[in-house]
Amino acid sequence: MQSIRTDLAVEAHELSKKAAKNASEIDGVISDVEKKGNITVTRVEITNENGSRALGKAQGTYVTVDAPDLKYSLDTYERTCQTVAEEIRKMAKVGSDTLTLVVGLGNREITPDALGTCVVSKLLVTHHIKRGGENDIFGDNISGVCAIAPGVLGTTGIETADIIKAVSEKVKPQLIIAVDALAAADIERISNTIQISDTGIQPGSGVGNNREGLCEETTGVKVIAIGVPTVIDAATISKVKIPEEMSPLMVTTRDIDLVIERAAKTVANGINLALHRNMTLRDVESYVG
Amino acid sequence: MQSIRTDLAVEAHELSKKAAKNASEIDGVISDVEKKGNITVTRVEITNENGSRALGKAQGTYVTVDAPDLKYSLDTYERTCQTVAEEIRKMAKVGSDTLTLVVGLGNREITPDALGTCVVSKLLVTHHIKRGGENDIFGDNISGVCAIAPGVLGTTGIETADIIKAVSEKVKPQLIIAVDALAAADIERISNTIQISDTGIQPGSGVGNNREGLCEETTGVKVIAIGVPTVIDAATISKVKIPEEMSPLMVTTRDIDLVIERAAKTVANGINLALHRNMTLRDVESYVG
Amino acid sequence: MQSIRTDLAVEAHELSKKAAKNASEIDGVISDVEKKGNITVTRVEITNENGSRALGKAQGTYVTVDAPDLKYSLDTYERTCQTVAEEIRKMAKVGSDTLTLVVGLGNREITPDALGTCVVSKLLVTHHIKRGGENDIFGDNISGVCAIAPGVLGTTGIETADIIKAVSEKVKPQLIIAVDALAAADIERISNTIQISDTGIQPGSGVGNNREGLCEETTGVKVIAIGVPTVIDAATISKVKIPEEMSPLMVTTRDIDLVIERAAKTVANGINLALHRNMTLRDVESYVG
Amino acid sequence: MQSIRTDLAVEAHELSKKAAKNASEIDGVISDVEKKGNITVTRVEITNENGSRALGKAQGTYVTVDAPDLKYSLDTYERTCQTVAEEIRKMAKVGSDTLTLVVGLGNREITPDALGTCVVSKLLVTHHIKRGGENDIFGDNISGVCAIAPGVLGTTGIETADIIKAVSEKVKPQLIIAVDALAAADIERISNTIQISDTGIQPGSGVGNNREGLCEETTGVKVIAIGVPTVIDAATISKVKIPEEMSPLMVTTRDIDLVIERAAKTVANGINLALHRNMTLRDVESYVG
Repeated sequence: MQSIRTDLAVEAHELSKKAAKNASEIDGVISDVEKKGNITVTRVEITNENGSRALGKAQGTYVTVDAPDLKYSLDTYERTCQTVAEEIRKMAKVGSDTLTLVVGLGNREITPDALGTCVVSKLLVTHHIKRGGENDIFGDNISGVCAIAPGVLGTTGIETADIIKAVSEKVKPQLIIAVDALAAADIERISNTIQISDTGIQPGSGVGNNREGLCEETTGVKVIAIGVPTVIDAATISKVKIPEEMSPLMVTTRDIDLVIERAAKTVANGINLALHRNMTLRDVESYVG
Repeated sequence: MQSIRTDLAVEAHELSKKAAKNASEIDGVISDVEKKGNITVTRVEITNENGSRALGKAQGTYVTVDAPDLKYSLDTYERTCQTVAEEIRKMAKVGSDTLTLVVGLGNREITPDALGTCVVSKLLVTHHIKRGGENDIFGDNISGVCAIAPGVLGTTGIETADIIKAVSEKVKPQLIIAVDALAAADIERISNTIQISDTGIQPGSGVGNNREGLCEETTGVKVIAIGVPTVIDAATISKVKIPEEMSPLMVTTRDIDLVIERAAKTVANGINLALHRNMTLRDVESYVG
Repeated sequence: MQSIRTDLAVEAHELSKKAAKNASEIDGVISDVEKKGNITVTRVEITNENGSRALGKAQGTYVTVDAPDLKYSLDTYERTCQTVAEEIRKMAKVGSDTLTLVVGLGNREITPDALGTCVVSKLLVTHHIKRGGENDIFGDNISGVCAIAPGVLGTTGIETADIIKAVSEKVKPQLIIAVDALAAADIERISNTIQISDTGIQPGSGVGNNREGLCEETTGVKVIAIGVPTVIDAATISKVKIPEEMSPLMVTTRDIDLVIERAAKTVANGINLALHRNMTLRDVESYVG
Repeated sequence: MQSIRTDLAVEAHELSKKAAKNASEIDGVISDVEKKGNITVTRVEITNENGSRALGKAQGTYVTVDAPDLKYSLDTYERTCQTVAEEIRKMAKVGSDTLTLVVGLGNREITPDALGTCVVSKLLVTHHIKRGGENDIFGDNISGVCAIAPGVLGTTGIETADIIKAVSEKVKPQLIIAVDALAAADIERISNTIQISDTGIQPGSGVGNNREGLCEETTGVKVIAIGVPTVIDAATISKVKIPEEMSPLMVTTRDIDLVIERAAKTVANGINLALHRNMTLRDVESYVG
């Protein structure tokens, strides 16, 4: 049982192993690590109830892409986009007939919570072009993509999950990709880590603490969740108990605006490459800026 | 038949009268003007098919609130908010049990088209508070308000009207208020004029040229449309024919960022006062910043 | 000797008294507290070298204006503006012939460091109007105000103090008011506290850690410094030693964008009222938006 | 004598030739055109008083880089950056000992006027690194670069030229590069054209109509001016005389935010490549984002 809050399965796994002391293995959790140059891909699979309880996460696959110098290297950026695209494709089949709804969660007015809305603004959205039959410029390279940034409960007055369900029922996608900012336990994770999971989004996770979850059970559509840690909970690093009314406090980096911009570009282009199969990163960047 | 594009019924009326030459009256159009200090309220009622054809607008009531020094005077600002609130209340009954969905149309990335999204960010949204039973702080002063900024077709891939209908079917409001930036024919209208109408929004109107309309026929809910002119169509003032591919051109004012900010504040607080009946402007400003 | 970092003299004083244990008084530090309704004004005067060493601050007067519900109440906002104006006037004589240079320090790209640039954008700047002889609209109510937001070393490549000195030598003001975001020790200070001091700005203070100071000795002009705490140093609340390379970490509030907006408005209008003596807050708000 | 306002020498030349009717040549104006794939480089040299009067521009060299699909093609973007860099290097010798002050003119709050401030935020600024002796990471590849965005008269109260002169006297650069948004006569020029000239900036040019010029005579330092047309003067396209008080009107494109972003990136990286001689575009993009 950990009191440290993290939305990353890979951190929850490490903390669980530490808590279990001698145990290097936890029943119901399989993990493996793959190195791709300076990029590390960690796969954590939670396969049963015990694993789920131990890590405090839903059963499913959580892939963490760690790219330590994402911030400074174009080369790392390009290979990270490709890696994100590959991992998405492993989780979902996307053909030229597939319609995907990308959902950018979070509050655009609060910088560390703006990742999702930022990603949505960098997508190559095609649903209206394909429907209009004007997709000659793209040919069969593209699948259908639509996207919304539904806002947060405090500014809409509506449960975010309700807006997404309503739109999903109307446009009937075969896949939902939900993007959100996450909280991590380790400050070094901020800006270098992307988590991709096939479990959807659980209630209470994310920087803004989503009240309701977003997953296949609630939407009837497969949901891939993609997140990037942008804050550490103040409680995690604080030496004194932070009182309840201080919960609005957050720990983040001074260059969070730049971090969000870069992470959003990487995630957005990872999604663009996954969904528009024969396009190169350069093609995609030409269209979306 | 006019070739000058305007979203304002009051301008369409003037242009029609000019086109009809001697005719000071057009069958099916009733208009009257009321002065409230330096604020002028013009009511144009289109009562039959002939009036609708002559003005190129749907039948219904269009109220124009003109406040020439809105930009410089706090006093004018306050009385304009009150006037907008009164006109909304004349068009729709709002009790403490009413749920209103406010829709902020337009593209937040294009300044003159951002009015709607800007208004949404300045509303006193209450639906979640009332549902949660935590409305002790407000008492019976407030009605239920929820709000979305659905984005535009080019960035979502989804018809904006479809998103609004989907959300409306989910939250079941008794009233929709749709806010959008408008095109005017007269440059002096920019920033000084607010149009409120009970006809909803017609296809092809607005700065971004909404493809589908938004009205009681399509949503099943009464729709009040509120708009502020922020651009003049370049075609309106141009001496040479502007080629089709130049349509992205627009004429606006250098201080459009400030104009949008002030107009959005006036419209938002007009809506806030209309829906939260016993609150003062000062109360409202305390809550929404 | 405290290891907790704070830019607030009032906090440094409390910490010094605690460190000195039984000592309720420190030689060279005089402080008194005045209540004005819900606003608390604390004056800390550092009168000798011993006081300066004990508090780690230059000799001079530090006035702290605490307004706990600044965030929610228009009434508190208005009285806080007046209080800030009064305290500025106590520190500097301003007549209609005075020229004041207001300097907005900090990095506008980093939200919690953007206070200074934000204040500058809300000032009633008059130097060019007075020089142009077009000040009929204002009459004798206004003094001369000019303002710059010089940027930070990392984005200009120039020491900020050098830019300010260069501009000051060119425009020759009688007074400089320098505005900056501060670090506090107590999280409750964020957003509710304004510090006004006649000592100028010391090297190493401020959110962005100004490398050089800005004071009468270095500029030849009286410098009033105004600051608002927007962050807590992560080191202050951390239970583990935060490594050097993590120094970019900061602790702030989730609603920091709103906090900056409100604090900037209060400080800017405090300055406006101090310098344009016969204007009301309402007048000032009409001009600067 | 033309009544059409343009800041582009290449347009002024065309208009003069038209006005002179049969004259294909104007005494004192030499021009030549070079094609580099889809990029067109036009050099207009004004060599005497007659040419200066005919075109309404100072004597000197004006290079126009036209890249029609700058907006959509990464390849065009990269070659345009290189071309801008080459043209800057032809106008000024830059060695590793050179210190260049880049000045971003214009008002960041008015989108079409924000080009200069936008460029400044994308520069690889090195003066403080070289002075600090920490330039191991860059080696001899870089020259000294510092940069300011001085603001505009209306918000600073200070003549922009005075701020620049003051800072220039303090940091003593060997070269000033001044970047500003321009007005063009032809709407097709918006977003596709970059003008580079060795004449500095003349009074009355630029979107915000700089009141004082900025050139070698006034600063004592060689001034290269770089501009991109972002607006057309409303008077240029209007069929009716636009009254004086309507001068704040401007004609621009709906996607001006995107246009500014792309143009600023191209100009900034052109400058970066010109000043940091052995760096590749990719290197530069790694550092500045």
